[in-house]
Amino acid sequence: MILADAFLAAVKYNDAGLVPVIAQNEKGEVLMLAWMNRDTLQETLESGEVTYWSRSRMARWRKGETSGNTQKLIEAYIDCDGDTVLLKVVQQGSACHTGAPTCFFRKLERG
Amino acid sequence: MILADAFLAAVKYNDAGLVPVIAQNEKGEVLMLAWMNRDTLQETLESGEVTYWSRSRMARWRKGETSGNTQKLIEAYIDCDGDTVLLKVVQQGSACHTGAPTCFFRKLERG
Repeated sequence: MILADAFLAAVKYNDAGLVPVIAQNEKGEVLMLAWMNRDTLQETLESGEVTYWSRSRMARWRKGETSGNTQKLIEAYIDCDGDTVLLKVVQQGSACHTGAPTCFFRKLERG
Repeated sequence: MILADAFLAAVKYNDAGLVPVIAQNEKGEVLMLAWMNRDTLQETLESGEVTYWSRSRMARWRKGETSGNTQKLIEAYIDCDGDTVLLKVVQQGSACHTGAPTCFFRKLERG
């Protein structure tokens, strides 16, 4: 268990200042992968409202701010080398902008 | 459900030709995030042996090739916009090079 300051300091950001963040719900379903910079990660940890960095809009993106499909933070983890964050969240409504419960709804059919 | 050719074609790689890949075990635990290029993704789908691209070694990296801690592919998904892959795997031994069952063993302590 590490405190928020140590958590933030342990994260290694890429050349764009971003870290990939996996969101998983309480049932263990992987909902999405998005990105955070240090500011939005800190905001997420402090507020409990999951807030990403939109690479397309180049802007802070509090999940559900317009759609209502918010993510409430339950637990946060970093991986062994500090370059990925895993969040356990309570997802309101659908995680995906398509309306699907999770963004991973396209499954490989194996031959 | 989509076939392997359509799956490979649907993936969008970043400027380095790589896509982030989340590995999850049959219990729903997120084990790790690593990267694949098109060749190692194709090899993974065809062989069922999960094979990443090591960004540090700039080389193909069949998981468990030296350690024995292989990952057998069960299911593969791509997300809505095609820029992340999710694999359900059977993990032999520990997923993490530290010997931990998953790479996400550092948990935030909330104040």
